[in-house]
Amino acid sequence: MGNGTGGSKGPILVVGGGIGGLAAALSLSRSGQDVVVLEKAAQFVEIGAGLQLAPNATRILASLGLMEAIREVGVFPNRLRLKTALTDENLTSLDLGEGFIQRYGAPYVVMHRNDLLRILLEGCQAQPSVELLPGKEIKEVENDADGVIATCADGSTYRGRALIGADGLWSTVRKRLSDDAPVCSGYVSYRGTVPTERTTAHAPLDEVVAWIGPGLHYVQYPLRSGNLYNQVAVFRSDQYLQGKEDWGNSEELEEKFSVTCEHIRTAMPLLGRDHRWPMYDREPIGRWTDGNITLLGDAAHPMLQYLAQGACQAIEDANAIGVAFDRESGNIGKALNVYEQARTLRTARVQRNARLWGDMWHIDGAGRLMRDELFSRRDVDDHSHIEWLYGKRDPLAASD
Amino acid sequence: MGNGTGGSKGPILVVGGGIGGLAAALSLSRSGQDVVVLEKAAQFVEIGAGLQLAPNATRILASLGLMEAIREVGVFPNRLRLKTALTDENLTSLDLGEGFIQRYGAPYVVMHRNDLLRILLEGCQAQPSVELLPGKEIKEVENDADGVIATCADGSTYRGRALIGADGLWSTVRKRLSDDAPVCSGYVSYRGTVPTERTTAHAPLDEVVAWIGPGLHYVQYPLRSGNLYNQVAVFRSDQYLQGKEDWGNSEELEEKFSVTCEHIRTAMPLLGRDHRWPMYDREPIGRWTDGNITLLGDAAHPMLQYLAQGACQAIEDANAIGVAFDRESGNIGKALNVYEQARTLRTARVQRNARLWGDMWHIDGAGRLMRDELFSRRDVDDHSHIEWLYGKRDPLAASD
Repeated sequence: MGNGTGGSKGPILVVGGGIGGLAAALSLSRSGQDVVVLEKAAQFVEIGAGLQLAPNATRILASLGLMEAIREVGVFPNRLRLKTALTDENLTSLDLGEGFIQRYGAPYVVMHRNDLLRILLEGCQAQPSVELLPGKEIKEVENDADGVIATCADGSTYRGRALIGADGLWSTVRKRLSDDAPVCSGYVSYRGTVPTERTTAHAPLDEVVAWIGPGLHYVQYPLRSGNLYNQVAVFRSDQYLQGKEDWGNSEELEEKFSVTCEHIRTAMPLLGRDHRWPMYDREPIGRWTDGNITLLGDAAHPMLQYLAQGACQAIEDANAIGVAFDRESGNIGKALNVYEQARTLRTARVQRNARLWGDMWHIDGAGRLMRDELFSRRDVDDHSHIEWLYGKRDPLAASD
Repeated sequence: MGNGTGGSKGPILVVGGGIGGLAAALSLSRSGQDVVVLEKAAQFVEIGAGLQLAPNATRILASLGLMEAIREVGVFPNRLRLKTALTDENLTSLDLGEGFIQRYGAPYVVMHRNDLLRILLEGCQAQPSVELLPGKEIKEVENDADGVIATCADGSTYRGRALIGADGLWSTVRKRLSDDAPVCSGYVSYRGTVPTERTTAHAPLDEVVAWIGPGLHYVQYPLRSGNLYNQVAVFRSDQYLQGKEDWGNSEELEEKFSVTCEHIRTAMPLLGRDHRWPMYDREPIGRWTDGNITLLGDAAHPMLQYLAQGACQAIEDANAIGVAFDRESGNIGKALNVYEQARTLRTARVQRNARLWGDMWHIDGAGRLMRDELFSRRDVDDHSHIEWLYGKRDPLAASD
């Protein structure tokens, strides 16, 4: 891999029109760049249900001018709460009210993934310098003397000054940069929404609640101005460990959650079972740039969802790359370098901590007892464990 | 198993002249009973090195009139301390000074196992009602109309009103009462003493220090008025898990501890390697009395050593059986029943907690991080976790 010498012609190509890709397009266009977004699907849509946006992401979304739109559809919970999945006991909580917003300079928001995508899409559509091209599946990307060239499955080619692979966990662009593979956690997730008035058991409607237990957890929170209710069930599949092909199926879901508290068992009949997400991440990598090609979001640093930072870190990436291009607009290689250095340590820390957080949630035995005691004794005003994640920081600081 | 109807003739037979057996003999003789102690070995000696006596045991030893003798050879540490085995960092400590002694009504003492045995032996020898018979290996024990009859390997038989099996982990007497087997923990322990002036690395001489780490721990404290220094190394044997016969050997010891902090590695060359103790316990059982035959100490409730309560609980047993005979002297069956009811819940809790405590010491990963944080944050004056164990209690209370 060589250093980018800085292609001088054409737009910046963004491969992938998900949350990370569109946020990057918006951020880059605001830095004066022309952007072409190449999206495989025929439409810009997100699958999945709810999404949590911590202040490290909402600060950026606010700076992109999107808070008004978010306020129309998002929910601003007053509290994150952890409870025990087996006995429905409170462990600890985090107040998200005025003090939290003051401290971090932005609110905690939960919203439907597709609502955020639509808001980002409308933001991009409002920018003349962003071109959105659905139905463009990338087959190959290459550096060349003028920058990069991307070849699509339909035979079309696109030239640009630089290319950002924002094509997710199974990224095609990443293959050029690393021969690693996604790491399967053996956990599977079921997610879905239900109209709030149809729920059979819900938590207080101003809270995001996670019930945590041995090898499983359950999450509930409201979406779309409180009209939709989001539910997530996650468990470690024994059948995965046994090498069974159909691991994590709905029978295993029922059996795993049969030991949980009444609240969860009452709520579960309305949990969506149409689709399930086996959960993967990857090991952090120290370099994800080659010449004028770089990565962003899950393509660069896929993570387990236990810190609810997948979208947030993609949005941080998007902001950093915009700021990097703003600062180093004359030298693409330098801009990509600055971006990479700003993001590798930080996202590696989030990846590592997401795994650790999952281990803490799902631990059993002596570890579970100590966890419950540690969490129960926690001073609810203590932010020492999340300041590093939610706190304000220089988007280009090469630190974690 | 029938209820004891109360043999009317003969002494109480105690099978096993270890710490528990001799403490029981002393306690019973002070309750006015005649006692015969049948010990397999040719002499009354203990193998092993240091021994920790918490106030739940020293209160009883004081009531047996032994504190003066203990004071001559024991060490009264000022502090129990937990550190990390890999990084030698302080986790938490427990002050054993005046406040502790006031609270529990007796001091924390560490001493050589054989010194305690000698003190108990001298106590028994001073009691005309205690007969000490070494070289008596028990082959069979039976209830009969007059009480019990014990048959030895040398063909001799002994009759008594009741019989107490205090014959340790591999108890012969227990076989009559339960067909369970010892449970191997897969951990092995190396123990030894060295003259204090020859030590290569020792902790403060007024402390009992345990360095805890993933799958291993190391303990140091002074003995015999500070002239001897006690060291214990314990680790989980991978070779045990692999089914190897020679598991837990000294090569495995070296390899396991090669990752520990400099203090431990400096101290280890002087750790005794002549003998090793694979570590066993058993599942708690709810009944350990049959007619006029009962169990005591490790024969009744062998436990892992992580709470340092093996000898202490045997001493509690000895006290309880003495008090039970004192109270129910006319009815042996009732006395044994009261003793059993007073001890089964209590010792089961200690057995269970000893395992749990071991799991907490040896945990790795997320559990280790949470343990370290929980222990580091602990208020050193908080006794809520040990009050149940060290606090004063009715010796015949049928509670845990």
